[in-house]
Amino acid sequence: MKNYVIHHEWKIIEEGFKPELNRISESLFSIGNGKMGQRANFEEKYSGDTMNGTYVAGIYYPDKTRVGWWKNGYPEYFAKIINSTNWIGIGIKINGEELDLATAKVLSFTRELDMQHGLLSRRFVAELKNGNQIEVCSHRFVSVAATEIGAIRYTVKALNFSGEIEVSPFLDGDVVNEDSNYDEKFWVEVSRAVGGAEGYLTVETLKTEFQVCTGMWFQLLKNGEKVDSKISNRDKEKYVEALQKVKVSEGGEIVVEKLSATVSSLYYEKENLVERTKEAIDLAVDAGYDALFESHKNRWLGKWKTSDIKIEGDVAAQQGIRFNIFQLNQTYSGEDERLNIGPKGFTGEKYGGVTYWDTEAYCLPFYLSTAPQKVSKNLLVYRHKHLQKAIENAEKLGFKNGAALYPMVTINGEECHNEWEITFEEIHRNGAIAYAIYDYINYTGDKEYLAPTGFEVLLGISRFWSQRVNWSAEKQRYVMLGVTGPNEYENNVNNNFHTSYIAVWTLKYTLEVIDYLKKEFPFLFEEMVKKWKFNELTETEQWKDIIEKMYYPRDEKRGIYLQQDGFLDKDLTPVAELSEEDLPINQKWSWDRILRSPYIKQADTLQSLYLFQENFTSEELKSHFDFYEPLTVHESSLSPCIHSILAARIGYQKKSYEMYLRTARLDLDDYNNDTEDGLHITSMGGTWMSFVMGFGGMRVVNGRLTFNPFIPESWKSYAFRIDFGGAHLEVTKTASIFSILNHSEIEVPVTIWGEEYRIKGNEIKEFKK
Amino acid sequence: MKNYVIHHEWKIIEEGFKPELNRISESLFSIGNGKMGQRANFEEKYSGDTMNGTYVAGIYYPDKTRVGWWKNGYPEYFAKIINSTNWIGIGIKINGEELDLATAKVLSFTRELDMQHGLLSRRFVAELKNGNQIEVCSHRFVSVAATEIGAIRYTVKALNFSGEIEVSPFLDGDVVNEDSNYDEKFWVEVSRAVGGAEGYLTVETLKTEFQVCTGMWFQLLKNGEKVDSKISNRDKEKYVEALQKVKVSEGGEIVVEKLSATVSSLYYEKENLVERTKEAIDLAVDAGYDALFESHKNRWLGKWKTSDIKIEGDVAAQQGIRFNIFQLNQTYSGEDERLNIGPKGFTGEKYGGVTYWDTEAYCLPFYLSTAPQKVSKNLLVYRHKHLQKAIENAEKLGFKNGAALYPMVTINGEECHNEWEITFEEIHRNGAIAYAIYDYINYTGDKEYLAPTGFEVLLGISRFWSQRVNWSAEKQRYVMLGVTGPNEYENNVNNNFHTSYIAVWTLKYTLEVIDYLKKEFPFLFEEMVKKWKFNELTETEQWKDIIEKMYYPRDEKRGIYLQQDGFLDKDLTPVAELSEEDLPINQKWSWDRILRSPYIKQADTLQSLYLFQENFTSEELKSHFDFYEPLTVHESSLSPCIHSILAARIGYQKKSYEMYLRTARLDLDDYNNDTEDGLHITSMGGTWMSFVMGFGGMRVVNGRLTFNPFIPESWKSYAFRIDFGGAHLEVTKTASIFSILNHSEIEVPVTIWGEEYRIKGNEIKEFKK
Repeated sequence: MKNYVIHHEWKIIEEGFKPELNRISESLFSIGNGKMGQRANFEEKYSGDTMNGTYVAGIYYPDKTRVGWWKNGYPEYFAKIINSTNWIGIGIKINGEELDLATAKVLSFTRELDMQHGLLSRRFVAELKNGNQIEVCSHRFVSVAATEIGAIRYTVKALNFSGEIEVSPFLDGDVVNEDSNYDEKFWVEVSRAVGGAEGYLTVETLKTEFQVCTGMWFQLLKNGEKVDSKISNRDKEKYVEALQKVKVSEGGEIVVEKLSATVSSLYYEKENLVERTKEAIDLAVDAGYDALFESHKNRWLGKWKTSDIKIEGDVAAQQGIRFNIFQLNQTYSGEDERLNIGPKGFTGEKYGGVTYWDTEAYCLPFYLSTAPQKVSKNLLVYRHKHLQKAIENAEKLGFKNGAALYPMVTINGEECHNEWEITFEEIHRNGAIAYAIYDYINYTGDKEYLAPTGFEVLLGISRFWSQRVNWSAEKQRYVMLGVTGPNEYENNVNNNFHTSYIAVWTLKYTLEVIDYLKKEFPFLFEEMVKKWKFNELTETEQWKDIIEKMYYPRDEKRGIYLQQDGFLDKDLTPVAELSEEDLPINQKWSWDRILRSPYIKQADTLQSLYLFQENFTSEELKSHFDFYEPLTVHESSLSPCIHSILAARIGYQKKSYEMYLRTARLDLDDYNNDTEDGLHITSMGGTWMSFVMGFGGMRVVNGRLTFNPFIPESWKSYAFRIDFGGAHLEVTKTASIFSILNHSEIEVPVTIWGEEYRIKGNEIKEFKK
Repeated sequence: MKNYVIHHEWKIIEEGFKPELNRISESLFSIGNGKMGQRANFEEKYSGDTMNGTYVAGIYYPDKTRVGWWKNGYPEYFAKIINSTNWIGIGIKINGEELDLATAKVLSFTRELDMQHGLLSRRFVAELKNGNQIEVCSHRFVSVAATEIGAIRYTVKALNFSGEIEVSPFLDGDVVNEDSNYDEKFWVEVSRAVGGAEGYLTVETLKTEFQVCTGMWFQLLKNGEKVDSKISNRDKEKYVEALQKVKVSEGGEIVVEKLSATVSSLYYEKENLVERTKEAIDLAVDAGYDALFESHKNRWLGKWKTSDIKIEGDVAAQQGIRFNIFQLNQTYSGEDERLNIGPKGFTGEKYGGVTYWDTEAYCLPFYLSTAPQKVSKNLLVYRHKHLQKAIENAEKLGFKNGAALYPMVTINGEECHNEWEITFEEIHRNGAIAYAIYDYINYTGDKEYLAPTGFEVLLGISRFWSQRVNWSAEKQRYVMLGVTGPNEYENNVNNNFHTSYIAVWTLKYTLEVIDYLKKEFPFLFEEMVKKWKFNELTETEQWKDIIEKMYYPRDEKRGIYLQQDGFLDKDLTPVAELSEEDLPINQKWSWDRILRSPYIKQADTLQSLYLFQENFTSEELKSHFDFYEPLTVHESSLSPCIHSILAARIGYQKKSYEMYLRTARLDLDDYNNDTEDGLHITSMGGTWMSFVMGFGGMRVVNGRLTFNPFIPESWKSYAFRIDFGGAHLEVTKTASIFSILNHSEIEVPVTIWGEEYRIKGNEIKEFKK
């Protein structure tokens, strides 16, 4: 846990030079635009501790897997979004001495991320070994308007000397991933060219053969005038550089404007990449830094209009929630259905930038409520495009007849993960992917998505569930053996409630969908029957039998479902009675002790109760929460949000707020001591959920927007914005009043605290409890 | 499965040159003497496929572990008995051309392992590219009498040419392990010296800093006369060589006699190693090849006297059982309590030559019956010496107060294995180590071993069990959660019967031992109480409570104990109904499918029933066997022996023989297609067990030798030899008669087919049923 970030409503601010925290700040001050991302590495040389990170969406390397003991069915590789050509580099020499904050005396230092406008700034005064003092101010953004473009304005002021400054903007493709399994480099050069102020470098990934061309252009200004001294060039393998010198007098100032374009073979033919990059650079140069920033800034202001959350009375909380929203919007923009959301987004290497069930379970709701419908739809289409791979994945494990098991971790539909207890057993992810279809349709009303895209995915998943259960002669019930639930502190258990429940839910929902298709799209449905060799009668009969006769472990005495068979055999000492030395158990305890303990890493049975709240009475929700919450250690960043929402739902407002606080500033305060690896992007979706669904009590029930809001005691007011049914709503809560302002012309029916209302176009309506 | 080994009562014979089977033969024809071992690599250069293997007992390298996903508690390294200085090498040049069977034309080839005398021979005729034909005959042994010595007699006959033969005996320490995790070399040179016919090379392991000095001496003979031409020498890092040339005429023959000594820092101060090696070489040279072989051969004949098994009427079976006995005797001689038995002995790299529970469960009975008492005692002392490490291992996992968990895999007492489901959960191994103490005392009567060596180990293990169980409020019983039984096709199960049963047995036995110590060694016991801070009252009260209230999963309907909780929820289709395509499931099925299946890799519940036969009625043994056998796939080489013994016990003689056949020629016929990795040494102990305890029905019940013999239908007779209570017995069974010949003066009480008898000294007694 660290606390060095200065609180501010719209900005992330670091004061003072703290090399020991540099990796954390590099993560926190990351910038991105959904197509590329950049850690907050320095432009100038830095020989201190740093993790360079430039990530290009969709460009990955299948790193050969490393495993202790091979198990049949393991994948051969782990896909990684890889560190790519460094486009930010600007070497600076002052009277021949290279600027390097690791060796210079840093007299002052401020780093600032303006979230409102998407701008990263840095300002410092440094004294070099030669005694020369300079003041540097850099601004940097990757454009959300022109997503190939990165721009830097880098100012150097000579504070106590006259002399020569040499600037050398460069592109460096000779980069590595720290997490390379076998210390290999992933890139080879395709071509390079550099002349005058322009340079181009094209590199290609080994094995996957993606190409990325990066272009740069720069200009050097002195006292507002372009410097016309000679530009020389250097190049070597995977590296191009331009170099210009200029004389400055004491107090004088020079400015380097560097523009870059990063263009990949994901969007253009390889043979046109360089040309296309040149065009992008030309357009950017024509526009210039200021105009590029203007359009970028306006696009950010637009994003905030639909997604901002305001908190009055708590600057830290305000900064926290905006940071989460900012990062979610930096990570995924929904324009390309081949892209998805890595747990660390574009802010670090960990988890390889690949896709987990986090997307469906924790991120989808944010994009559903704050972005155009297409954005969340593309998250669903991503999975539909991987359906064939999911079927092959299931076949590899012995399933047949079109059963689909979506991977635990993937970038292209193939499984990447290789812990048997997760890869093969944490199959509730399949349910999350099915539920996302329901969630999307429930929120947007876009039922046609089922015909046939959604249906095809549901059919594959339902077939999987129907083969994954088996009949227990002993129990005279269907059982689901050998699974790992969301609580990864239990492995290979039998009859995990959440998995079994969401499996049965999938079967029920697929049956509903079949009825809908048969009614609304009879010809299409016939096509589907043929395409998928769907034996409707026998398959649905079996599904119905499973729905009817599924076994769920249950404790009748407590009136609760049990997380899995045998859960009550454990020593059920609550977390509160553990000594401080024991926590976090994932650091303090051996793995077997964790497994044998009753402690829950993240919401598991409660995950079902959160998803299917309507199927349970408040009393039931309460008795489950009362049983499981005291045993939950929340050692996954994805846990507190679910508890926060459920706590709000059953009236435990303090608990709800306490849980919210555990995620809201997770990265800003480096709560888990791992922000240096990158930000917890997907858990930021969970933070948003605990705010809007927890405090706001927002839920869509049978397509109808409902709210059960409350406000944490210490706050004056909060407000969030959502899109729903084409309308745009601004929802505000103060201690006494709840109000909805409809920014659109469209009337919206809502349920508030159980009462039904309609909010007319452009109306503001206030409610008191 | 391969069948190329020629059947012979005392020899393993390979006819014809089969390069594609070379690795298998290198394993099969391995020689060793308990202190060192050598795969059957060729003396001369061989550029074909080969795995060089020279292993020196106790000399290991802690190879940095390779793991996919780290779990708290994993060890940092995997210890490996490593490939050491090659002492067998003799380069041969014929008229300037190097002899290499991979490039020469091999006109005939025979390899032969004489098990009776411990001699490896090879004879071949080869034609070189230059047309020269030679006949080579090599003999090689590592002495069981002088265990540092290896000796080679290598004869070359010029068949169709006259000319020059160059011989270059060498020592090569620049060797690698194929299974090195990071392709590192493990050895560095300490010193080398070579002059004339003698050479010395001392190398040291990285990290562990063991030193091994290897010395060589040779002489070249022509037509029986020593050749006195000049010997030149060459050396480079980790390599020394001597070189001598000799002219031969067509039909003439030369002989190279190479003697080596391998001396390690396990037995001598490092500074004396070279000197000690020189002494060993000098002694060997003084004795000469023939005398060395004579004493070696006599020692082997002595070993056979106490351990041979004879079968009349089945040469393949005869060869199989002798091969097993031969290899067990080659692997462990019991002179050094720091040594143990690796699953592959000295015949390959797999499993690193380290110690598993195999030793106690499958090898101890062989050494108990066929070797001096000290041999098996040293296997127990090995574990006692590791007690402190076992306590530290348990502490690492969160246990306290002197609880000891012996490692799954070890060489020095530290755990090496890193699969959580095995390392942390396959804890029944602790029971096997406790049981071995009982087994040893029951067989030998050496109760004093308990005071205090045996007791200390039992105390640590009992403390572990008492902490490893927990009280289930639900069941009002003690439960054992999160374990893996011997059947590794189930992981992380609750209440594995075998584990719980052997845990409770350990507690009971430790209580008995405490009573014995208090009575027989009261002062010593008081010392123990202090040394181990043993709170006798509270600790034993808790043990008694566990003994009384332990939970065992059970199916009352079938009258059987269940392998674990929930076993009956599985689809219990017997193995016989699987399709051939499904087998072996460990190759054909994904890991999760295996886990969810009911199929049993090796005896699990039946392991307890085998160990504790006296606690169960014949009916109970039968109902368990009838339930579990049809579900058992025997995909561990350690499985069929237990089934064979139990089948014999309950009168299923055909099944017993069928099971025996699955282990008896496992390696000779390369049944599992993995003999190339090395031989299944520890399962050879199991083969011996299924013979003597299965067919012979031998068992020691309350210290009394009992037999319930039968003979497989296709055999004429069999006979085995055992030591018991100081007597030496030869036990013979024909179709009609069972006889015991007492080769000693000591009278032995026995129970045969339930009747009690006494076999007087030097008496032969016959029994009919």
